[in-house]
Amino acid sequence: MTLDEFSFIAQIRRTAAVTPEVAIGIGDDCAALDLPPGEQLLVTSDLLLEGVHFRCDWTSCFDLGAKAAAVNLSDLAAMGARPVGLVLGLGLPDRLDDADRRELVAGFIAEAEAFETALVGGDTCRAQQFLTLSVTAFGTADPRQVVRRGGARPGDRIFVSGTLGDSALALKYLGEGVSPEGSLARRHHRPTARVSLGRRLAAAGVSAMIDISDGLLADLGHILEASAVGAEIISGELPLSAPFRRDLAGNPDLLQLALTGGEDYELLFTLPPDRETAARRAAAECGVPIREIGRILPDREAFWLVAADGARSRPEQRGFDHFRA
Amino acid sequence: MTLDEFSFIAQIRRTAAVTPEVAIGIGDDCAALDLPPGEQLLVTSDLLLEGVHFRCDWTSCFDLGAKAAAVNLSDLAAMGARPVGLVLGLGLPDRLDDADRRELVAGFIAEAEAFETALVGGDTCRAQQFLTLSVTAFGTADPRQVVRRGGARPGDRIFVSGTLGDSALALKYLGEGVSPEGSLARRHHRPTARVSLGRRLAAAGVSAMIDISDGLLADLGHILEASAVGAEIISGELPLSAPFRRDLAGNPDLLQLALTGGEDYELLFTLPPDRETAARRAAAECGVPIREIGRILPDREAFWLVAADGARSRPEQRGFDHFRA
Repeated sequence: MTLDEFSFIAQIRRTAAVTPEVAIGIGDDCAALDLPPGEQLLVTSDLLLEGVHFRCDWTSCFDLGAKAAAVNLSDLAAMGARPVGLVLGLGLPDRLDDADRRELVAGFIAEAEAFETALVGGDTCRAQQFLTLSVTAFGTADPRQVVRRGGARPGDRIFVSGTLGDSALALKYLGEGVSPEGSLARRHHRPTARVSLGRRLAAAGVSAMIDISDGLLADLGHILEASAVGAEIISGELPLSAPFRRDLAGNPDLLQLALTGGEDYELLFTLPPDRETAARRAAAECGVPIREIGRILPDREAFWLVAADGARSRPEQRGFDHFRA
Repeated sequence: MTLDEFSFIAQIRRTAAVTPEVAIGIGDDCAALDLPPGEQLLVTSDLLLEGVHFRCDWTSCFDLGAKAAAVNLSDLAAMGARPVGLVLGLGLPDRLDDADRRELVAGFIAEAEAFETALVGGDTCRAQQFLTLSVTAFGTADPRQVVRRGGARPGDRIFVSGTLGDSALALKYLGEGVSPEGSLARRHHRPTARVSLGRRLAAAGVSAMIDISDGLLADLGHILEASAVGAEIISGELPLSAPFRRDLAGNPDLLQLALTGGEDYELLFTLPPDRETAARRAAAECGVPIREIGRILPDREAFWLVAADGARSRPEQRGFDHFRA
């Protein structure tokens, strides 16, 4: 027997932090937030479904809650916004016991607090079979510094933060029944939203930005389409972690995971040449490595992957389709 | 074969309106909204799960989409807020064809536009089996006029808008395999969010307000608990529609549906005596009937239902538990 709905909500309410922006938190028809004058409200939302986006036997409830918050904070980061609140919808199947439910919310709240923001409201109900999480995150930004997908221009350099493919490699191993090693597993189960980096890069004047959720090529494709430009990516420049490089040495096909794997939650951005110094300083200030991996081309039909031997190929997969996956 | 994800999103994007508040609509990592200076952001969210909150064989996709928007707009109404945007998360099982999907979104957008607001973003993905909708709605209000649940004081009168029990009566008939008549069915499938009334009542100085989603007694219970007061409700004063009265004449037990049935989406509010004239004028201006049904008592343990013969009883059900239902 689990806690009833109202006791569960009361428990969440006791554990949720209240930040300066929260005028009304959990427990009324709506939450109320005070936003800084002159700033724009940024909003993003994700639905996470058991069996589609995650499996309960591969992740802990705490990590799942934390990841649900992180993937939304990552979208705020990609626009250069500062998070000011999150809401969480939970559809809970009966098999989740009180400890599972508490851990799920604890992970979500811990992730929100790590970015100085709070869970401010949501909805809880019983689900028939599949655990369902729905998250909406709010942020604010100076409207002059909000970074969109459509600002990339020919001659801009293409950069990415952190390393690529680790999450997809962990997922591949999980699918094969193999436990991925700690650092890979962590990249998959506990991605880091690059919130501080995103804000600093926005201030430094990046021309377009997106977070890598569908895979480098797919998300670069979104920037190219919105900006009506083309690009070339230098395969040898892709930033790869030590465990990824080690496994890649035994199986060169794994490179595909760094190109199309998804769920990296790194920032992909384009940089006018005169902004490079400011962007590198921004990255150094938050201790996150960034790497130049290619450049924007004027021809919107151009989309090239350049191999180590200089051979140019056209990547097949440009878009990840969530209806087909 | 249905449209791929990106074609579906492009289709939604073409049909969604852009209101003055929408700085960035569908198609980037986040939506961006410009809010009026000095106003507070109000946020509410609901998760709607097939088989828990709705059945696809009882409703059209258009009505379901519209209702998903309406129930969230109703929460904004209960705080006295003006809607400025909604986001929609859709988990779509394969059996929903393109026409179903289009209708679902068309209903949602139509309902948003009826309240001069817009769908600004969201998330779409494949669902394994059950259709899942997640909605978050945003509104703004002058912080001095935001109405909470906790403001009811002894001596305040308790009012409700519209009529009670129609939606629950329609649901009862649907459960028995009987088609409810048009006006009852409409109250269940296409509830009206009392947005204009909520804003005017807030300006008129109501002391506490909530929308009736869990049933009159349960939602009154939320006001009483938050306000630390008691109440008495006069059974004979409950506002009932003509079809409800007709069926009630043959089956007096149906009165329970008006007390606990839920999904009325009417406004329940408390009114200091000196605000009654202003509140009645507000209701008349938006053409929505309001009715006094009881009063607030100082003793927080007091919760009475007064029958036509003056007999007082203590209602058993005060809270609807979404985990047990």
